[in-house]
Amino acid sequence: GDTAAALAAGCPVVFKAHSGHMATADLVASAIIRAAERTQMPKGVFNMIFGNGVGEGLVKHPAIQAVGFTGSLNGGNALCKMAAERPQPIPVFAEMSSINPVVLLPGALQARGETVAKELAGSVVMGAGQFCTNPGVVIGLRSPAFSTFIEQLTEQMGSQAPQTMLNAGGLRSYSKGVEHLLSHPGVTHLAGKPQEGKQAQAQLFKADVSLLLNGDQLLQEEVFGPTTLLIEVADDAQLKDALQALRGQLTATVIGEPADLSQYNWLQPILEEKVGRILFNGYPTRVEVCEAMVHGGPYPATSDARGTSVGTLAIDRFLRPVCYQNRADSQSPPALQNANPLGLRRLVNGEWSDQPVA
Amino acid sequence: GDTAAALAAGCPVVFKAHSGHMATADLVASAIIRAAERTQMPKGVFNMIFGNGVGEGLVKHPAIQAVGFTGSLNGGNALCKMAAERPQPIPVFAEMSSINPVVLLPGALQARGETVAKELAGSVVMGAGQFCTNPGVVIGLRSPAFSTFIEQLTEQMGSQAPQTMLNAGGLRSYSKGVEHLLSHPGVTHLAGKPQEGKQAQAQLFKADVSLLLNGDQLLQEEVFGPTTLLIEVADDAQLKDALQALRGQLTATVIGEPADLSQYNWLQPILEEKVGRILFNGYPTRVEVCEAMVHGGPYPATSDARGTSVGTLAIDRFLRPVCYQNRADSQSPPALQNANPLGLRRLVNGEWSDQPVA
Repeated sequence: GDTAAALAAGCPVVFKAHSGHMATADLVASAIIRAAERTQMPKGVFNMIFGNGVGEGLVKHPAIQAVGFTGSLNGGNALCKMAAERPQPIPVFAEMSSINPVVLLPGALQARGETVAKELAGSVVMGAGQFCTNPGVVIGLRSPAFSTFIEQLTEQMGSQAPQTMLNAGGLRSYSKGVEHLLSHPGVTHLAGKPQEGKQAQAQLFKADVSLLLNGDQLLQEEVFGPTTLLIEVADDAQLKDALQALRGQLTATVIGEPADLSQYNWLQPILEEKVGRILFNGYPTRVEVCEAMVHGGPYPATSDARGTSVGTLAIDRFLRPVCYQNRADSQSPPALQNANPLGLRRLVNGEWSDQPVA
Repeated sequence: GDTAAALAAGCPVVFKAHSGHMATADLVASAIIRAAERTQMPKGVFNMIFGNGVGEGLVKHPAIQAVGFTGSLNGGNALCKMAAERPQPIPVFAEMSSINPVVLLPGALQARGETVAKELAGSVVMGAGQFCTNPGVVIGLRSPAFSTFIEQLTEQMGSQAPQTMLNAGGLRSYSKGVEHLLSHPGVTHLAGKPQEGKQAQAQLFKADVSLLLNGDQLLQEEVFGPTTLLIEVADDAQLKDALQALRGQLTATVIGEPADLSQYNWLQPILEEKVGRILFNGYPTRVEVCEAMVHGGPYPATSDARGTSVGTLAIDRFLRPVCYQNRADSQSPPALQNANPLGLRRLVNGEWSDQPVA
């Protein structure tokens, strides 16, 4: 996303390949370079580098003017610190940690609990759970319908086939995350085979809501892989408290019937403060590249909540406004000439217009 | 600027009054609060606090989500560091240091050198030189016309009346800045009475271009007050080197006849990299609040070059995008409803439209 946005903004890009899939990175880089050549972009507009420890040199290099990053909270924070301490500080757009809460409303569980269980399980295990927007916590209101749903989701998650992850490091992190959950006294394991061998096993846990309300670290941390965690709240007041206890996230999802959504309309302003994208009756995995997309959110989901790494709004990350005062029309580029030869829609004295300026 | 922008973006503001003009600050705050009451904005939307050392507590307070600042490079850097080290880091929009280079082209000096000297002196001493966009360095190409211009500017600056600055601290800083220039071996004093008493004396200096080319600190630092510094370059190549040696600035100004501007069109891409606003045949003091204004620039002029503190674009500083996916039309605010009841121009599937969505 950031590479496409930076190129669209006219910036050359230096890309550090992930050590876990270097051959894939090389294939993608070659495709980008071929495309750049075919479209006659300047030579050197895209560069990929390989190696451990080269990130630091890159972030500190004076020619680098912005950084995009996806990865761990520690890694992202370290990059932000380095960038802020440069002689000339630069922005870092880091996507670091998101557990993407899903709120299940009572009417939907009553009307189509089993379908929701199937769909939600599908979203959790999609691509072995290796999506930033993987639903990592599922919140429901205590009720017979939610209890039935828990059984249904347990069955769904228990019947998932193991999956191969992107690389061995990812599998190691996933196994460690699962162990932490298994060993936590406030967390119950509901489904999933022991995590052993070379593939990731889908897992389902249930945690006491007090862990979330008391700021337990484990419930704020993303376990990157095919796992999710159920939380049961006693009533609407506790649902509100639980959502407010969440840190910044990329997404929040609300599953509800029309009557649910009217009744729980008060969720929206709470979720707006917490996330970059709010979904209704959908699942957060799958991200459309379009004008309306926001794939960002408050810290620690991202280091800079004012943008997105996916969608056309991402181009703004790599632009800096420059104002020309009293420049001769003849010395202005076509986009700014009075005659508007490119027929652009422009803001002229506060009014949008695609007409020439008289 | 930032207060107006934050309010326009829907954010409440806590403003720390400058200790040098507290009564003025109180008058302005009262006016803002009266306006907020008359327009029925929520109570507490604007707050002013007084006192030394309260800034740190403000920047670190979890309810504060962004910081605007105008002041010294050291002060701004310290705030940026504090904000970056918060448990939840927040953006700082600091405007810190700018010497606003003015480039005088040969044709203009030939055609109207005396007028330029008068106008430029007026810009340097306007408001006792207390503007972020005060022209702090004036660059010209060695020639008889430039030598004559130097004499004319020397006469203009020498005949300025002393002026009262905003506060005693500002006068102390100005006196110290003037002393540094007077004591530098590479800097010649051309005009200005000794800096003594309670008012600021306008001063004119000339510095050897080598100071700029070798990165001498003194030539990069803003002297906040009615003073400016001439630099003579040998030729176009040295002009280019001198401009490239400048750090980030708020503005750059080019004074030239039409033939000059065509011949020196190559200046534009260099200046674009260095500043937020480029002026032709105007002077950087006076800033219009409008859609096109950019009152920002690369570090150290500002801490975040992607924005502006003056003009409507400043509102973006205080906004964060949120995407709603599959939200019921009935639960959307009027601005987003399909019928477009507010008649807004909206980006719909990539096309601008003020029509209802079918």
